[in-house]
Amino acid sequence: MADALGGIRVVDFTRIFAGPAATQILADLGADVVKIEDPGGGDDARRYGFDDEKLERFGASPPFLALNRNKRSVAIDLRNPAGREVASLLARSADVVVHNFRTGVMSRWRLDYEDVAATNPGVVYCDFSAYGRTGPLAEAGANDLALQAHSGLMSMTGEAGGGPVRAGTSVVDFHGGLSMACAIMAALFHRARTGEGQRVETSLLLSSAHLMGYFYTEYWLDGTVHGPMGTANYLTVPNQAFPTVDGATVIIASTDDAWRCCVEALDPERLDLPEFRRATDRLRSRKKLVEILSSVTAELSSADVARRLAGTRVVVSKVNSVAEAADHQQLRAIGGTLGLNYNDHPVHVVGTPFKMEKTPPTLRRAPPTVGEHTVEILEEFGLTGDALADFAARGAFGAGAVPLGAGSEA
Amino acid sequence: MADALGGIRVVDFTRIFAGPAATQILADLGADVVKIEDPGGGDDARRYGFDDEKLERFGASPPFLALNRNKRSVAIDLRNPAGREVASLLARSADVVVHNFRTGVMSRWRLDYEDVAATNPGVVYCDFSAYGRTGPLAEAGANDLALQAHSGLMSMTGEAGGGPVRAGTSVVDFHGGLSMACAIMAALFHRARTGEGQRVETSLLLSSAHLMGYFYTEYWLDGTVHGPMGTANYLTVPNQAFPTVDGATVIIASTDDAWRCCVEALDPERLDLPEFRRATDRLRSRKKLVEILSSVTAELSSADVARRLAGTRVVVSKVNSVAEAADHQQLRAIGGTLGLNYNDHPVHVVGTPFKMEKTPPTLRRAPPTVGEHTVEILEEFGLTGDALADFAARGAFGAGAVPLGAGSEA
Repeated sequence: MADALGGIRVVDFTRIFAGPAATQILADLGADVVKIEDPGGGDDARRYGFDDEKLERFGASPPFLALNRNKRSVAIDLRNPAGREVASLLARSADVVVHNFRTGVMSRWRLDYEDVAATNPGVVYCDFSAYGRTGPLAEAGANDLALQAHSGLMSMTGEAGGGPVRAGTSVVDFHGGLSMACAIMAALFHRARTGEGQRVETSLLLSSAHLMGYFYTEYWLDGTVHGPMGTANYLTVPNQAFPTVDGATVIIASTDDAWRCCVEALDPERLDLPEFRRATDRLRSRKKLVEILSSVTAELSSADVARRLAGTRVVVSKVNSVAEAADHQQLRAIGGTLGLNYNDHPVHVVGTPFKMEKTPPTLRRAPPTVGEHTVEILEEFGLTGDALADFAARGAFGAGAVPLGAGSEA
Repeated sequence: MADALGGIRVVDFTRIFAGPAATQILADLGADVVKIEDPGGGDDARRYGFDDEKLERFGASPPFLALNRNKRSVAIDLRNPAGREVASLLARSADVVVHNFRTGVMSRWRLDYEDVAATNPGVVYCDFSAYGRTGPLAEAGANDLALQAHSGLMSMTGEAGGGPVRAGTSVVDFHGGLSMACAIMAALFHRARTGEGQRVETSLLLSSAHLMGYFYTEYWLDGTVHGPMGTANYLTVPNQAFPTVDGATVIIASTDDAWRCCVEALDPERLDLPEFRRATDRLRSRKKLVEILSSVTAELSSADVARRLAGTRVVVSKVNSVAEAADHQQLRAIGGTLGLNYNDHPVHVVGTPFKMEKTPPTLRRAPPTVGEHTVEILEEFGLTGDALADFAARGAFGAGAVPLGAGSEA
């Protein structure tokens, strides 16, 4: 089987979540992703959320392990001029260069699009910033949480009348990662047809606005500003989570047909009220319907609710814990998980978010240790012997000497 | 300027949010997206969230307007055999075919990958399902809310100790849309290099698992299952929303340096406590720190907090309402919005979630009305005169006659 991005070399300056999520997609598709890491500890995400004891045991944090498979790591000190020379050398023969430094940093380091394109005009160069490269917030730093706040997502999340709440995972980071991956592949497609490279760009701001787009459009149309509604929404009733004996279950019966199924399967006596029969009436009788339906579901297990509504047009889903979701057989049944090894530990991760029949995403290597492939990569880019030693002496690879011979045969 | 996907014809059977979000990306990049709609009202999303009065006034719902620009609409009745013949004819000369019907439907209609590829082997054929095409849930229907529940996202969202809450926008739908767009572009790139078409696939399940991946990895590693924490998270303190005179503001000061900036800028007297100086101590003193910092910020406006922390490494962001977010000058400054016309009303929408310098996404046309381009499209595919009349008589385009001549000169 071929790799969709076989032969594509990506020089990857990104750190933390959003950038590595983008290059993870490219790496899964067979691109050679060269991850540039700071010699003093590498990608900060390596240490996110684990204490020293767990870091010692597992070698890296869950987010790092989840987002860096199929990549090779080269340790380069970008604050050092010699390090930047090496980085520039790598960028010169890259098909794709990606970074998520603050706006202005790559330019100060002479690693901006213009610098790279001067010797590598076919490059696809990717700026991944917080708020974009122009405008009053261009140079502001931000992250997932800040954009959940800025975008209005946080104001839409939570209990009705309650305070703001964040979506429980880094939705803006991951969505931004896929936006960047889309932009890169569109640019590679254009290059395959015309030979022309270009600069592409996304930001957490653009990605969060994409997630919130239809709410903005509604506000711009007629001034409507929605607020949080717990698990419910303003579209239809019932369309939210209901309590069960063992937790909670989402029940969605938006159409009148679906509602009839609900009534018959769960409790015709309590649920078959005239004021619930039409969709518009159900919206008006929201409070009463939710109360009665809750009292019905509260006497059933989540599995009971699912069983009774199976085969109908009613959408049902248990509100799973992370453990239940991760271990659910359906995810394995569709090949959604991968097993690898890191620090002599088995590690399981979620795979690529799509499948391809003729060029399937593959697992070729575990996430790298910091600088694991420094020598191997530098040799491939033609940096050997005295030249390599000279860069090392000038501090390009950090204070320690470059680990000569550690990887060139791997 | 060229279009990245100029000359690519997409036959688009998708409805509601996730599928149209995927093909919106392709359409923005210049692909010719032919949206197949049911003659009896078209894409259900046209009516989502608007009452009759608003529908009359604006012509379509905000989600529909947000996700269907740059597409043309052909009205075909797929429950009618003649309609399916027409659909099959369109699919035969498509570069990309996308659908999000339940698993099994396209196969019953003889519009599955094998059917299309038999006469169009280079096609990129895309299955976009709820839970994937195999496994016990393969044929179950689901939507964004169901997958927020199933994936564990809902269990991670809400107040600590409170009930589950949904992320306030359709994060799984939109993320799934970008996953599909990525898969399609990777397949087009492969086809540009080799001529080979293929079937690609994503599902709301795969996309939701991608959003939750690092939590699954952590659970699989050592059994940790996180719960909801309002706007906070388990990584660092302070890293959440704090009350202000006029609402709330996110303050993120994860490092000890950033915390020192926070202390000095906001209130050294109340905040400079020894037990807050080190990151690990701040995690232990979370409750006390959040209480004191909240009492400090509660006396300031959000703008004051931002001003005092400007230029430091502390990340700050106001918790914006949808109105504040939509109207924020930064989004316009980076060209994140587009204006178009629908039903004689000006409509503003969020643009493509990324930018490309040489092949910029463009706005070429407003979202279509149902079947607006039926004749024009059928003529392009070679269906004219008697053949067209015959299909119309057999009900291919619904009960009414096809609107002859309505669009062929457009």
